[in-house]
Amino acid sequence: MKVKYQLLKKDGKTNARHGLLHTNYGTVETPMFMPVGTQATVKTLSPEELKDIHSGVILSNTYHLWLRPGEDIVAKAGGLHRFMNYDGPILTDSGGFQVFSLADKKNITEEGVLFKSHINGEKLFLTPEKSIEIQNKLDSDIAMSFDECIPYPASYEYAKKSTERTIRWAKRGKDAHKNENQSLFGIVQGGEYEDLRKWSAQETVKLGFDGYSIGGTSVGEDKPTMYKMIDDAIVYLPEDKPRYLMGVGDPIDILEGVERGVDMFDCVLPTRIARHGNAFTHHGKINLKNAKFKEDFTPIESECNCYACKHYTKAYIRHLIVANETFGQRLLSIHNLRFLIKLVEDLRIAIDKDAFLSYKENFIKEYQNKE
Amino acid sequence: MKVKYQLLKKDGKTNARHGLLHTNYGTVETPMFMPVGTQATVKTLSPEELKDIHSGVILSNTYHLWLRPGEDIVAKAGGLHRFMNYDGPILTDSGGFQVFSLADKKNITEEGVLFKSHINGEKLFLTPEKSIEIQNKLDSDIAMSFDECIPYPASYEYAKKSTERTIRWAKRGKDAHKNENQSLFGIVQGGEYEDLRKWSAQETVKLGFDGYSIGGTSVGEDKPTMYKMIDDAIVYLPEDKPRYLMGVGDPIDILEGVERGVDMFDCVLPTRIARHGNAFTHHGKINLKNAKFKEDFTPIESECNCYACKHYTKAYIRHLIVANETFGQRLLSIHNLRFLIKLVEDLRIAIDKDAFLSYKENFIKEYQNKE
Repeated sequence: MKVKYQLLKKDGKTNARHGLLHTNYGTVETPMFMPVGTQATVKTLSPEELKDIHSGVILSNTYHLWLRPGEDIVAKAGGLHRFMNYDGPILTDSGGFQVFSLADKKNITEEGVLFKSHINGEKLFLTPEKSIEIQNKLDSDIAMSFDECIPYPASYEYAKKSTERTIRWAKRGKDAHKNENQSLFGIVQGGEYEDLRKWSAQETVKLGFDGYSIGGTSVGEDKPTMYKMIDDAIVYLPEDKPRYLMGVGDPIDILEGVERGVDMFDCVLPTRIARHGNAFTHHGKINLKNAKFKEDFTPIESECNCYACKHYTKAYIRHLIVANETFGQRLLSIHNLRFLIKLVEDLRIAIDKDAFLSYKENFIKEYQNKE
Repeated sequence: MKVKYQLLKKDGKTNARHGLLHTNYGTVETPMFMPVGTQATVKTLSPEELKDIHSGVILSNTYHLWLRPGEDIVAKAGGLHRFMNYDGPILTDSGGFQVFSLADKKNITEEGVLFKSHINGEKLFLTPEKSIEIQNKLDSDIAMSFDECIPYPASYEYAKKSTERTIRWAKRGKDAHKNENQSLFGIVQGGEYEDLRKWSAQETVKLGFDGYSIGGTSVGEDKPTMYKMIDDAIVYLPEDKPRYLMGVGDPIDILEGVERGVDMFDCVLPTRIARHGNAFTHHGKINLKNAKFKEDFTPIESECNCYACKHYTKAYIRHLIVANETFGQRLLSIHNLRFLIKLVEDLRIAIDKDAFLSYKENFIKEYQNKE
């Protein structure tokens, strides 16, 4: 089936909204943070651990799975859910973000993108149709349209040309989409330009998708610009479809996104910083490698109900990270993902009470007031 | 309390024996394979996963914990069990094996061993007293005497000198041992020389320990020599104490050890080979990196009841290993440890039925008859 968005409650003072997303693999609540499982695994974690932190949808990367193990092997395994033993909903990206970062500008044409594999340098060509075909075979619950994520800053001329092409690519992808069991989301681009964002949003909505993503943020722009990029697009998106802000995982950016009406977020941040010894706390990020945690026999956060905080001390996790033991990365990944998932859970409660703004204010005050 | 060995049943035709080891953290069965948690973590695994594969005692390394995080931090955490959140029995080695591999021969004296830290090159001095003091602070359930693991081959003269010194060190360590809650095992050395093995075993037993280890095997000698080293020592060890063959984890070596009356084994092999993509099977080791497993959607072993075999295919684990995802190493570590633990479980049943030899014969035939 296609995913269906059901609005439960709008916050009284902002555009924040609490909703449900009905999927092939159960109903999940929004706003939602999606852990990233690039290579058909959320780094260091088991599917059971994802369930345990109340993960809803997870994201996997089409580019990586196309190269390794290949979409045909995943299809033969019975699709991505069976391949990786995950019975929750899965979203796949289009591969666009990765191939643009690997391609020469001159190799980006109307037809598609010629680029070199990061694994063996092999020349590969990705088109909107091919991206959708791969995602159809992966059999994720939500596929994404193939788009160009415009760099920041970009000239108006480049942004316009690229945004128009992304719309043509969205149409081609939609036409190529064959998997009745899979939803397809469109992506709004337009760079930093208000009129292009508006045009892109309106044209994407005209094509008609099961959900809409706001793309092209978190590419080096300052925060006010990023929030304006969301504002300039989201007003043109329909209320009855889910809205997804791609690549955003900073707690404060999640608050800003939810305030504007965003339902879904994803980012590698919580698992990536975990591998470098960093943990989210309500008083900002801390780095466990810091010597001051050597004899700190308290959990990362005593109020946190994650597996890491229930059973392990900062001193032990610090030891594991310093000794380069992957169990330390695993404990921090669990904590950091749970931190963001708990954040969106709390936001849903705040929305239900029309208290989003005071929650946001308190959170930011505490988060920026480091211990 | 000190560990207590209780004999349940001897095999009718061999010296294999099924027993119980009563410890501070519960009663565990022997023969037993002990997973190695060098740095206060069995690489990639959680304590819950160790319980799930029916792990009995685990081993941790005194040398590594001495250097990082330091025995005083572990003591302040409440001992190794609380530090690493493991409520099963723990054995610590003496650190001797590691420091001898890091020391110049000229820096091995009667007093102890001067060597350089593998982490920062710092010069450190380890003595029998210091090894015991560290282990007392780690508060493991079983501490090991500080010994020299004689290289192979070694001259009779060197082996004799070293074996005599190891006995003097065992006495010094025993005198220094203060932890009433911790057992202390002696270690038989003697190299490849029958008379030295006998002398070492008899002198070690005279000192009186809570268990006895056969050391100095798996250091490059051929298999018949290794088995003879066991034979030459084990006849002099008391029946009412546990016997531990250090550093042995090859399935066939475990069979040979159990046949001779060994109760405990440990080895990094199952977790180390896992990190390189290898899995134990009843038809020998397989390497999941092999291209033939690309589309193999069956578990490593369909009869195996481990978490990896219950939920994942060779194709998926292969993908994870090739893509360098630690979840793959974790799945293989679980399988390999479970393989050896299941082997000793099966041996206990065979011993109860006086059927050790036929079990061994069938196992070896299948194991060496690769698919």
